Amino acid sequence: ASALSSSGTAAGVGVDQELISSVPSWNPTFVERNFTDAEISYCRSQPSPPSSFAARWVGKEAVFKSLGVASKGAAAAMKDIEILPNETGVPTVTLHREAKAAADSKGIKQILVSLSHSETVAIAFAQAST
Amino acid sequence: ASALSSSGTAAGVGVDQELISSVPSWNPTFVERNFTDAEISYCRSQPSPPSSFAARWVGKEAVFKSLGVASKGAAAAMKDIEILPNETGVPTVTLHREAKAAADSKGIKQILVSLSHSETVAIAFAQAST
Amino acid sequence: ASALSSSGTAAGVGVDQELISSVPSWNPTFVERNFTDAEISYCRSQPSPPSSFAARWVGKEAVFKSLGVASKGAAAAMKDIEILPNETGVPTVTLHREAKAAADSKGIKQILVSLSHSETVAIAFAQAST
Repeated sequence: ASALSSSGTAAGVGVDQELISSVPSWNPTFVERNFTDAEISYCRSQPSPPSSFAARWVGKEAVFKSLGVASKGAAAAMKDIEILPNETGVPTVTLHREAKAAADSKGIKQILVSLSHSETVAIAFAQAST
Repeated sequence: ASALSSSGTAAGVGVDQELISSVPSWNPTFVERNFTDAEISYCRSQPSPPSSFAARWVGKEAVFKSLGVASKGAAAAMKDIEILPNETGVPTVTLHREAKAAADSKGIKQILVSLSHSETVAIAFAQAST
Repeated sequence: ASALSSSGTAAGVGVDQELISSVPSWNPTFVERNFTDAEISYCRSQPSPPSSFAARWVGKEAVFKSLGVASKGAAAAMKDIEILPNETGVPTVTLHREAKAAADSKGIKQILVSLSHSETVAIAFAQAST
């Protein structure tokens, strides 16, 4: 019964925002360190690649916050949090390596994310559930 | 058991933001196409109608995102997503027509929304649950 | 069965934003009325106390909205909504007095919150669950 009753419980939320101009998507080192090949292809195919990279970047930060793990250091692998549109265009989270291990260790089974950008600001919200 | 355990599961989230000045609430065609009569009356009764229309507009966008349906076209009926305060002032979502059909087809039983506006920016968050 | 199935159900969400410059954290009366001693100590220990006070302030507003109670008056005790980092740095909500009574009366058992600030804007999101 306790397993049943805890199914679908919200375990963490995350919100993040950045000025689009402050996300250095023009810098190949930043991009390659933090985005997967599929994310890079997707963002470069969009009408405004800087906006898409920035939205995805704050999305990764929001997902990281929703995991509720200890503060990341400089070596944190944001590339391990991959956000790609599913077949209906909804941003969908896939975790790899350490991010996946952190989620598994907390029993997190689902992470939802939403992204938004205006002309200047990118905002994201994430919710992790057990 | 599986029906029980999936009750209340988060099915989608949505975040949206706009500059208040970029939501054309001074345009009667825009207003009548996108807001219900009750929404229009409510927004016009508020201290700053442009802020109220803008907050409600991003609320509709956030709810739309939380439904996780395919990208809307120019003909999307945002009027089918109605957001009005309940008796305690909490913004409450009622879906009509296509928006209701989309939610029903995905088993979505509840959509929560919150709205916020500063002097220049309106932000909304929505969460859909089965 | 109904108790089981309603466990973990989302009961309310809240989003709020403010310009950091519009939160009067330089004003000791404002600070002492709205923040607990532990919050004040924490915010003053951070790299940018005005940003930390502003983020916490919008966090309290977001939590208040997530409770879904009637509009607060001038006398509302935002000090009763305390937000402090837990041992892993995750902002964690503790309710006191009237805020606790309001949550208890609605069966709210968990409130999650996330905070974010850019150089100019603080944003928070909260989710209350039964």
